[in-house]
Amino acid sequence: MQEQIHGGNIYKASRMYGIRKEDFLDYSANINPLGLPQNLREILISNLDNLVNYPDTECTELKQDISRYLKVDEDRIIVGNGASEVIFLLFEVLRPKKVLIPSPTFAEYSKAAVRCGADIEYFPLKEEDNFIPDREDLFSKLQAGVDALFLCNPNNPTSTLLTKSSLLEIIEYSSRRNVFVIIDEAFIELTAEANENSMAEVLSRFNNLFIIRAFTKLFAIPGLRLGYGLGGVETVKKMWEIKMPWSVNSLACSVGPVLEDKTGYMKKTREWIKEELEWFYDELVKIPGLKVFKPNTNFILLKILEEGLNVKILKDKMASKGILIRDASNFKFLNEKFFRIAIKDRERNTVFLRTLKEVMG
Amino acid sequence: MQEQIHGGNIYKASRMYGIRKEDFLDYSANINPLGLPQNLREILISNLDNLVNYPDTECTELKQDISRYLKVDEDRIIVGNGASEVIFLLFEVLRPKKVLIPSPTFAEYSKAAVRCGADIEYFPLKEEDNFIPDREDLFSKLQAGVDALFLCNPNNPTSTLLTKSSLLEIIEYSSRRNVFVIIDEAFIELTAEANENSMAEVLSRFNNLFIIRAFTKLFAIPGLRLGYGLGGVETVKKMWEIKMPWSVNSLACSVGPVLEDKTGYMKKTREWIKEELEWFYDELVKIPGLKVFKPNTNFILLKILEEGLNVKILKDKMASKGILIRDASNFKFLNEKFFRIAIKDRERNTVFLRTLKEVMG
Repeated sequence: MQEQIHGGNIYKASRMYGIRKEDFLDYSANINPLGLPQNLREILISNLDNLVNYPDTECTELKQDISRYLKVDEDRIIVGNGASEVIFLLFEVLRPKKVLIPSPTFAEYSKAAVRCGADIEYFPLKEEDNFIPDREDLFSKLQAGVDALFLCNPNNPTSTLLTKSSLLEIIEYSSRRNVFVIIDEAFIELTAEANENSMAEVLSRFNNLFIIRAFTKLFAIPGLRLGYGLGGVETVKKMWEIKMPWSVNSLACSVGPVLEDKTGYMKKTREWIKEELEWFYDELVKIPGLKVFKPNTNFILLKILEEGLNVKILKDKMASKGILIRDASNFKFLNEKFFRIAIKDRERNTVFLRTLKEVMG
Repeated sequence: MQEQIHGGNIYKASRMYGIRKEDFLDYSANINPLGLPQNLREILISNLDNLVNYPDTECTELKQDISRYLKVDEDRIIVGNGASEVIFLLFEVLRPKKVLIPSPTFAEYSKAAVRCGADIEYFPLKEEDNFIPDREDLFSKLQAGVDALFLCNPNNPTSTLLTKSSLLEIIEYSSRRNVFVIIDEAFIELTAEANENSMAEVLSRFNNLFIIRAFTKLFAIPGLRLGYGLGGVETVKKMWEIKMPWSVNSLACSVGPVLEDKTGYMKKTREWIKEELEWFYDELVKIPGLKVFKPNTNFILLKILEEGLNVKILKDKMASKGILIRDASNFKFLNEKFFRIAIKDRERNTVFLRTLKEVMG
């Protein structure tokens, strides 16, 4: 069942613990805690009457807005029902025989690959390397019959960030070996350097590069369903051709103007992440019985060191106190000692820390 | 390209004819002209803040509302991103080898079938029979190696309605020959007898029956993307399993309460259809050079009898006067003489009639 796999199933938690969903502090979903931008809300309301029309199958205006935002040509942009649809479409077009997936990472990549009949090789990201892929190991795998490499940057759930230069080296190496490189940048705007870490600017240099992006995390709208992809003109064209015509709803089609950031929401987001990421990490490491992995974006992976305690027990205890955490035991190569939490604002993080200390103590 | 296939692409028309999209009278899309129900609008606004949560992957509340509305068990209900997603999921689960599709009909059925590797046999609905399938012909096809039969009732674009007794006979006959019957009831609530024509009430009697429904046409929300399907428990369960987890956005998930019809919108819809369908038809038949097929729901199929005139010319002339009609020439077994129009309210229908007379005259 989906609900057991992904974070953020507040509906089920509400039924299970008898707590109203609005009363939960949801640290299981990694969404911008600044919440729905006010101007996005206004855009949605002013577009409600447009629901009587079918969505624009080509998402014309939205593509124009994304194109301006990232300086990527419109014919390199595909829009989808969340990043999920973009990933599925990409695999349907690429039909790779074997996909290398550095893991632990977001489970949807392997699901999409399996659905398209691909074999998967999981490349283990090691705890002792802080989940950064070993360069030599990775390169040797890339020359051993792999068609595609799927990276998440920054990576979910480890919150690690690969540098631009190391990514460039991976893409170039893969290019020479006909390996397609897919990079999911769903959280890139929630790192301190935001789009400076994006590979969008080198997109036109590589035929083997595809970048996945979303409005979801940055603008706190997982409910709206809006992701996009950036790739080669031919790949993108084929993806549009096989896409269900109206999978992106008309409200989602209308939100492009938020990318102009007239209200400073994105600037405020960067300021918050810089400030809160460090503070929250420093406070968490003070709690005994936990190993905290250094985060680069708005969520943190933690490991329970205490014997006799596991994530099921911890999750249950936290939930009964109104806080949801993400059980990370079902991520490949992790186990029942790992959990993931979101970073929110100081006020809520303080509540979270107090509760976690109580529960751990 | 999708835009050339389906009605209702007001975005492209706006670009082509230099008329603002809100200034068009869109007779190409067959949506309830009563527009967005006021209480639905209120539900959407009150749920905007819930966009910060992922949609409920199980659409629990929506299933409950549909279950109450049609008296169908919740475990027989699948919800999707429009009827389109429901159709694709169904074909992925059924994987029929050969599908019989009485045509002309909605093009998505054959697209979905082809995508799942099925062969298609088009069963011709004949103009001289007013597009009602010939019983003997249909039955002989059903025993000749067909796995599934796809019916649209009332049928798009012909606006014909099969009686409940004839449908029951088809389902029973098919059941004995292991033929799966799929009935798309997207427009059923826009017939004079509304759900009385639905096969939902016999659903539990047949293992070979699946019904497709949508909120789209009835509540005038094609932009929101919300369809559903009713079928056997096992089929529905498999569909949920392969569905992309969040394809139905959280606003769509929240609109179930409109089915209670506290504001009388559905009642008003039935009153309007009864009144306007007959009047509009009677007025249309008075226009020389046209054959008008008797409608049963909120759209009408017409044939141009005048030599030298075809739908491309007519469509262009109407569009330049701000009215969009649906070129029906790309429906299987139709040709460049056919077009489809919506039925709207008296005021707009009067404008439509005046404009059509001018253009035809």
